[in-house]
Amino acid sequence: MNLLIEGDAVVTMGPKGTIKNGAIVVEGDTIVEIGKARKLISKYRRYEKIGGKGKVIIPGLVNTHHHAAMSILRGYADDMDLRTWLERQIWPMEKHMTSRDNYVGALLTAVESIMGGVTTVNTMYHYTSEYNEARAFAEAGIRGVIGHVCFSWRKKQDRKALELLAKTWHTQRNGRLRASVDPHAPYTVDPEYMKELKAYKRELSEKYASEKSPIIFHTHVAETIDEADKIMHAYSIPSKGGVVEYLDSLEVLSNDVVASHCVHLTNTDMEILKERNVKVAHNPVSNLKLGSGICPLKRLLENGITVGLGTDSSCSNNSSDMFEVMKITALLHKGITRDPTMLPADQILRMATIEGAKTLLWSEEIGSIRTGKKADVAIVDFKKPHLTPVYNETSHLVYAAKSSDVDTVIVNGELLMENREVKTLNTDNIISMAEKTRQTLMDRVCESL
Amino acid sequence: MNLLIEGDAVVTMGPKGTIKNGAIVVEGDTIVEIGKARKLISKYRRYEKIGGKGKVIIPGLVNTHHHAAMSILRGYADDMDLRTWLERQIWPMEKHMTSRDNYVGALLTAVESIMGGVTTVNTMYHYTSEYNEARAFAEAGIRGVIGHVCFSWRKKQDRKALELLAKTWHTQRNGRLRASVDPHAPYTVDPEYMKELKAYKRELSEKYASEKSPIIFHTHVAETIDEADKIMHAYSIPSKGGVVEYLDSLEVLSNDVVASHCVHLTNTDMEILKERNVKVAHNPVSNLKLGSGICPLKRLLENGITVGLGTDSSCSNNSSDMFEVMKITALLHKGITRDPTMLPADQILRMATIEGAKTLLWSEEIGSIRTGKKADVAIVDFKKPHLTPVYNETSHLVYAAKSSDVDTVIVNGELLMENREVKTLNTDNIISMAEKTRQTLMDRVCESL
Repeated sequence: MNLLIEGDAVVTMGPKGTIKNGAIVVEGDTIVEIGKARKLISKYRRYEKIGGKGKVIIPGLVNTHHHAAMSILRGYADDMDLRTWLERQIWPMEKHMTSRDNYVGALLTAVESIMGGVTTVNTMYHYTSEYNEARAFAEAGIRGVIGHVCFSWRKKQDRKALELLAKTWHTQRNGRLRASVDPHAPYTVDPEYMKELKAYKRELSEKYASEKSPIIFHTHVAETIDEADKIMHAYSIPSKGGVVEYLDSLEVLSNDVVASHCVHLTNTDMEILKERNVKVAHNPVSNLKLGSGICPLKRLLENGITVGLGTDSSCSNNSSDMFEVMKITALLHKGITRDPTMLPADQILRMATIEGAKTLLWSEEIGSIRTGKKADVAIVDFKKPHLTPVYNETSHLVYAAKSSDVDTVIVNGELLMENREVKTLNTDNIISMAEKTRQTLMDRVCESL
Repeated sequence: MNLLIEGDAVVTMGPKGTIKNGAIVVEGDTIVEIGKARKLISKYRRYEKIGGKGKVIIPGLVNTHHHAAMSILRGYADDMDLRTWLERQIWPMEKHMTSRDNYVGALLTAVESIMGGVTTVNTMYHYTSEYNEARAFAEAGIRGVIGHVCFSWRKKQDRKALELLAKTWHTQRNGRLRASVDPHAPYTVDPEYMKELKAYKRELSEKYASEKSPIIFHTHVAETIDEADKIMHAYSIPSKGGVVEYLDSLEVLSNDVVASHCVHLTNTDMEILKERNVKVAHNPVSNLKLGSGICPLKRLLENGITVGLGTDSSCSNNSSDMFEVMKITALLHKGITRDPTMLPADQILRMATIEGAKTLLWSEEIGSIRTGKKADVAIVDFKKPHLTPVYNETSHLVYAAKSSDVDTVIVNGELLMENREVKTLNTDNIISMAEKTRQTLMDRVCESL
């Protein structure tokens, strides 16, 4: 389909900056021209026109850390510390979850993300053959990096799941889906296994990936303050520094690694992240809600480290709302540093778009509105009292807009939502299915007690 | 009008807790019965039924600190420190604002608030006779405390404005509106004037108020770290402690004082707040955005001090969104104290409802769903992917719901919004009016340069 998307402003996040009364021309899955609406409308008369007066066009938002399936547990357990929450609530509950439950949870996340202008989600969860997150994302049409999460206690099973995931899904849905290798965390994946997984990632890359569609390595790093100690105790390693330093000693860090959280970093850790060009996924809502600590974002950015933003799962957030994450990121770091000039709106929007794309090694294709890139675009409806008046579109996008202001979403040139109606999936069905899934899940849990 | 409001849950925030499949019966402006929907529906067959399946009923939210008119400057200046922002951007701009501009700004705030389930707003701004915030609120039907902000440099003018405000608006709109006396801050109102204003408040109360509808005293307190020093220098007072201690030395602190911000408090300040039963309006979004510091909420609550939540103005927030404030309050204080068990969802919702009402000395009439109280109610639509599935309504209200999920809003028994359509005002007209207002305001500013 050929589209002409016009708006009061096109916020490209690319070299063209913000174009007032701008338009984007899409042919198939690709952006072919960007410019003033008047000129492009007369040039491309026959293209289907969307957007218009009162609309602001932005690159689709990139969520760099999620566990999509877990939306089925949204609000199941709150207001607890990470360990109690994970070990006493989430993990026991997950034992009762079927692969179909995971799939339904991922459908919820996909729909919620689309409805909030998110076009790419990096998700880490248990991969199983028939029902899984990849299938949910494929059905929704959303772009995603689908990881299989690995633990020391199931090495064989992990290897099979990773092979199946990469073989079945990597580059599928016209390139919208990618596989990733996801060791859960350095405290649940032993040193040997961590190295094996990195080697296996290379093996899978050779088999299924290319330079243009890489397989990334996605793991939790330094989320809680006791993580370094936990690792040293678990693997009888003499304590000698931070979690990043430990991972580096295993030679697993390189530019294809997404390290999620990075809340507790030593100075050496910071240097290593920079030197190895590791990408960081920053999840402020989850870190605050679990009381894990606050990521030293200012120092990461000063060191030139690529940082994307993420929601984390709907168990620890409890939303897949990247507009909310943008605002909270800005507020939190201004507040903590007592420097209100830090992280201006434009920089925050960059982190949620082009920097997020770089984090996932996907910026050649997405993250900004640029000729030749894939058409991943969100249209935001500014005709709302809470977005009135307009002095500056970027300010509104970060400080005043809500996920519910997203009107229309395009991924790979395909309209996934138009005028807030999701076109690829039936939202009401998903809501009913998810509610039913919760009921049967709770029944199974009760029976087991 | 007699109403029967039913929902999957009625979250009363009162002694009845949360009633599953509950209903509320409203006669005129008052809640007359609360209970199970089945029973009440058969008892009140002829009452107009609203709400229903998938809906959750909550008390209308109470915003304890705002400058409603300033929504006309939303997004005009961001990412600056408070002093530069206030003295170089906001105050110079405000010189060009007409009373009609203020009125249009207040209309924006009123509509935005209603659309976000906020039924009461405590606002501080310049009162003028023809156009003003009270008029905007009266037209919208929203409940409000309307203050006139006082400065040392315009004592005579303030006195006139306060008298006119109290006389014209206090208890108007069937009791929905109240006047307040609002010294801007201890650093802009000299000690003598502060005392005069407190005495004048008593005078106005005797003339226009009653015990059931008091006039409160609303001021900014200890927002920035240098405030105590600024006061001591400005009035040549020997430095001897915190801002609250200074105010107490003027004998202006009592249970009718709303102290907004209270970010920088000494131990003595904390004791005085408690002893004098001063109420605190906590505005986390604004404090973070301006890098002012973080209010010691945990200690305030441990001391049994009444704390309500506020958005502050749309210049420093940039939203009137109390759902957002609820979530950010929970996240911020869990994060800062590294205690995720702190401020559970129920306590946050209390602060945004009944504690807010107490802050404004209005809890006899509003803040919870209780027989005999005024019918200020918001109906939240839970049939959304991001509110699915439902394990716990209160968790969703604080951590997952958005202002845009509010479906219907009732104030004093009057339907102000139904199925997201505002009934008292034309939203599109207000948007156009506000955009025009911005343009003419900017024209005046440019001409003056």
